[in-house]
Amino acid sequence: MIYRRKVNFYETDAQGIVHHSNYPRYFEEARGYYLEQIGYPYERVREELGIDIVLIELSVKYKKPLFYGDEFEIDFHISHMDRFVFSFDYRVKNKDGLIAEGKTVHTCLDRKTRKIVSIPDILRVK
Amino acid sequence: MIYRRKVNFYETDAQGIVHHSNYPRYFEEARGYYLEQIGYPYERVREELGIDIVLIELSVKYKKPLFYGDEFEIDFHISHMDRFVFSFDYRVKNKDGLIAEGKTVHTCLDRKTRKIVSIPDILRVK
Amino acid sequence: MIYRRKVNFYETDAQGIVHHSNYPRYFEEARGYYLEQIGYPYERVREELGIDIVLIELSVKYKKPLFYGDEFEIDFHISHMDRFVFSFDYRVKNKDGLIAEGKTVHTCLDRKTRKIVSIPDILRVK
Amino acid sequence: MIYRRKVNFYETDAQGIVHHSNYPRYFEEARGYYLEQIGYPYERVREELGIDIVLIELSVKYKKPLFYGDEFEIDFHISHMDRFVFSFDYRVKNKDGLIAEGKTVHTCLDRKTRKIVSIPDILRVK
Repeated sequence: MIYRRKVNFYETDAQGIVHHSNYPRYFEEARGYYLEQIGYPYERVREELGIDIVLIELSVKYKKPLFYGDEFEIDFHISHMDRFVFSFDYRVKNKDGLIAEGKTVHTCLDRKTRKIVSIPDILRVK
Repeated sequence: MIYRRKVNFYETDAQGIVHHSNYPRYFEEARGYYLEQIGYPYERVREELGIDIVLIELSVKYKKPLFYGDEFEIDFHISHMDRFVFSFDYRVKNKDGLIAEGKTVHTCLDRKTRKIVSIPDILRVK
Repeated sequence: MIYRRKVNFYETDAQGIVHHSNYPRYFEEARGYYLEQIGYPYERVREELGIDIVLIELSVKYKKPLFYGDEFEIDFHISHMDRFVFSFDYRVKNKDGLIAEGKTVHTCLDRKTRKIVSIPDILRVK
Repeated sequence: MIYRRKVNFYETDAQGIVHHSNYPRYFEEARGYYLEQIGYPYERVREELGIDIVLIELSVKYKKPLFYGDEFEIDFHISHMDRFVFSFDYRVKNKDGLIAEGKTVHTCLDRKTRKIVSIPDILRVK
């Protein structure tokens, strides 16, 4: 799936580039877009299923910087899923090529008990 | 009351200065410090009193920029309080003088009903 | 002009609502959109005109909260402009009505000298 | 080295915990503290040596959440250094034990040419 975005000024830092802490936020936006596209926006996951999706691992490799106003896309997909854990892989690209690669790993928690629950079927759609 | 702070790199933007959206965050830190100093940290306000303090107005006048690594202080106090509404005034200063002036206005909400409640006595301490 | 946006999860706080410090960021996005629409994106202002647009005043009145996933729009316009100073007024709205009102005041600085310069004609387009 | 910190309210999200994107920011604060402790704050690195330290890899494993008001410490050290690349390892802990583990990898860029340069001796202090 492709999620498109443009760099906001407040995402830059005094090196003149996007601060690295924004990439995990971009990935989160992409996951939100994914849930919308499969018809199950995260608001519904939280309220109807009573589940919080939590992030347990994050990794990013930064290849080239992004600058204010840059248009970029995140090419991403679910790269792993078992009963309790699933992962997304991300490739951030713009017209100049690969900007960054990332991976996030997630589990689902019951919002009341804060215990891990098995991943709901609705998230298993390919 | 004086709250002291140093600028973090991730708070700067591509103009090389602290992004203006961080000042409301600095003010919030100062208010948190205030609640700690009067012996009622915000965690206790939320949990023991069942109250959320919400911000209903914000204003800032920016006089000079802050840069990465700058040490600064916020000189602040409660400037108004009636039954339902209270205000803080802030003066951000560093060794070069006045950096910014700000004001925030707040009310208290019952965390369950989300209705405005009168300001608890504990916050009325001068 | 209308700028449309959706709330990102990372913009919420432990009160379950959009943290107030994001509204100045939304306003900045709206201004960026404005500059694009008049054909002069801020990258060009910075690079071709050698100018930084700086924010010298900010005010926001918060009427109702925004929640994760909420769609909203910012209805905004230039409300004042003289030789050195200009202002934007903003009204943040969603399907439930008015969420917040804001105002920002700006000047232009020469990026090298950091001195105030008169507002370039290109920004004077209505 | 130990860097101590307290959670700010604006760092929480609607799950009631610190948003994961803040951990890279905490790590950056720890690195800034490290540079101060060795007598070479990042402002000096940037201005005297003309070098930007850039982050090329980031990874975090999240074990337990942090909540608003939590006091925590980051136990961190340089775990690798060769001519062009160095790494920090971090362990985030509070009174309940291990919160998260992280690693960042960095290189140094000449601020003018944006080319990789060898790591300055001053950063080689143990």
